Amino acid sequence: MNRVLPHIAQLHGYVPGEQPQVPGLIKLNTNENPYGPPPRALAALRDALDDRLRLYPDPTATELRKALAARYDFPPDQIIVGNGCDDILNLCVRAFCGPGDRLAYLWPSYSLYPVLAAIQNAQPVELPLDDQFQIPAHPAWLRQLDRVRLLFITQPNAPSGVWLPRVALQRVIEETPGVVVIDEAYVDFAADNCLDFARDYPNVIVARSFSKSYALAGLRIGWAVGPAELIRALQKVKDSYNVNRLSQLAARAALEDDVWLVDSLRRIRITRECIHDALLAKGFFVFPSQTNFLFARPPAPLTARRWFEALRADYRILTRWWDADRIRDFVRISIGTDDEMNKFLEATGAILEKA
Amino acid sequence: MNRVLPHIAQLHGYVPGEQPQVPGLIKLNTNENPYGPPPRALAALRDALDDRLRLYPDPTATELRKALAARYDFPPDQIIVGNGCDDILNLCVRAFCGPGDRLAYLWPSYSLYPVLAAIQNAQPVELPLDDQFQIPAHPAWLRQLDRVRLLFITQPNAPSGVWLPRVALQRVIEETPGVVVIDEAYVDFAADNCLDFARDYPNVIVARSFSKSYALAGLRIGWAVGPAELIRALQKVKDSYNVNRLSQLAARAALEDDVWLVDSLRRIRITRECIHDALLAKGFFVFPSQTNFLFARPPAPLTARRWFEALRADYRILTRWWDADRIRDFVRISIGTDDEMNKFLEATGAILEKA
Repeated sequence: MNRVLPHIAQLHGYVPGEQPQVPGLIKLNTNENPYGPPPRALAALRDALDDRLRLYPDPTATELRKALAARYDFPPDQIIVGNGCDDILNLCVRAFCGPGDRLAYLWPSYSLYPVLAAIQNAQPVELPLDDQFQIPAHPAWLRQLDRVRLLFITQPNAPSGVWLPRVALQRVIEETPGVVVIDEAYVDFAADNCLDFARDYPNVIVARSFSKSYALAGLRIGWAVGPAELIRALQKVKDSYNVNRLSQLAARAALEDDVWLVDSLRRIRITRECIHDALLAKGFFVFPSQTNFLFARPPAPLTARRWFEALRADYRILTRWWDADRIRDFVRISIGTDDEMNKFLEATGAILEKA
Repeated sequence: MNRVLPHIAQLHGYVPGEQPQVPGLIKLNTNENPYGPPPRALAALRDALDDRLRLYPDPTATELRKALAARYDFPPDQIIVGNGCDDILNLCVRAFCGPGDRLAYLWPSYSLYPVLAAIQNAQPVELPLDDQFQIPAHPAWLRQLDRVRLLFITQPNAPSGVWLPRVALQRVIEETPGVVVIDEAYVDFAADNCLDFARDYPNVIVARSFSKSYALAGLRIGWAVGPAELIRALQKVKDSYNVNRLSQLAARAALEDDVWLVDSLRRIRITRECIHDALLAKGFFVFPSQTNFLFARPPAPLTARRWFEALRADYRILTRWWDADRIRDFVRISIGTDDEMNKFLEATGAILEKA
């Protein structure tokens, strides 16, 4: 007997962005927030470091769900909290899409989706975005949604950073027989959001994260909101104690730190627009970003790969590049502090000159 | 289309022990360690509350795996770290046992196993323990292991607390064609352990937890060790960032706090034996425990249910009782502080008198 299931033995696992253990690198590769975490979250953590850590956490994160419910105006039983947003995405696969079932995702998009499909032995359905990384949504394209049990959409999209117009999404939601998960990991950096779809459609779940806008990637807190029946199914599938005590407390405190949040988002958006314009001025193609990263294509003869490698080797600046169809001409750059981004721009200018 | 998969819609989720949010209860219901967490873990946490929390954790918990590898004398690539031991158990299901495959577990045992089987739509195989809650291991019993892809064994067993003799386990391991997971969540309270089976058998994984002996239930840290090929499969299936930064640090520091550990285990073992003897003296049947809890049957006319309910209602003492075959005559009592256990004994005496 092969002890490992054949589809797992064959699987190429998800490759996360490098998390270097060496200090001194400028880390613009995994979309972390340079200004964090919120002071109130740190204060709440400091108050919690005592013998209560010997006790199990609240299995359903009641207080955090109540706080999210109050803030976003949903009943608490329509909200689930996860060990990061990735935990939520995985729960959706297990509750809504069995082996052999059609699991769809826009492409290019978050490269975890095909891995989640492969782990579940589901049938992956790659829905190609057009050259602007937008949803084509013409009839032949929409027919691919036939018998789809689960569809993942990143809004704003990653790695492009673009906003997907609401009407295109609504068309897709209405044509999808199964569950549509709108993964809004980056939405706090955008001008709009699609939370109302989780209210208005019986098949829409919106997933969110505390990793980016709230600068708590180290603590793994995600959540989702949707129709009570769907959320109930996720609660049954989740690990009983999926979110630890400290993360629950930090997230609750972070929600109360609006002054910090508004300021942090404002600074990141301003920096983003400055870097966007500076790259354009140097001849790069850059997608308009509604996130905390930019997706940019260098002008010839500089290639994306060379740019990415030179940033790392010569300037100790980490960005993200994928050797994959449709996206290998681009580099994804997380928005760091102004100082970090100035160094990035200088380095980019120097690399461009030598190209 | 039914949006929730039928086997999930039918599922009765795992019911964790009550985690009361009201203070002042004596909590002897979920086997938490009354003496914790280790001071070094708290100190490590205090040093970590800064802006590094904005960064993702190390996806594979490299330093923690190295520390575990050094302590238990395994190569680091034979070790995986999980978001609690339950995360590890779930990963084993996904990597080793597909829908329809045979997933076996001793019974009575940890009530999460059948839930994990149901979530995966695997075929549950309940292997009945004998009246002493021991493995019968005669030929007809062993034949049930035919075509089993995954077998869960809790050692020492829960909820009985008894140690399962090594020879019986070896017989079972040798007869099982698939993977055997020895769930040693409570093993630090026992006189022996089965870590050597993970070294000697190609199909054995041993899973451990920081929740009980290290008193870190609130932080969710489990780990497992086994043949490299099996651990590699689990690494592919796990969530990339399954263990947060603080938990990784706390666990590493806890491993260095041997003085605390030895003392804490000693105190709990002594209290356990005292309470065991005191219950025997009052006419209760009590299994010999190698864990941090006792499983006891009250003398007639007192019933387990009445005992459990009176402890809760009249004395604010929480214990655990299951309305399930084979175990409804018993109450499980976690070992608390001496003061808590004296109150428990007094309350039990009073309830017995009124019965």
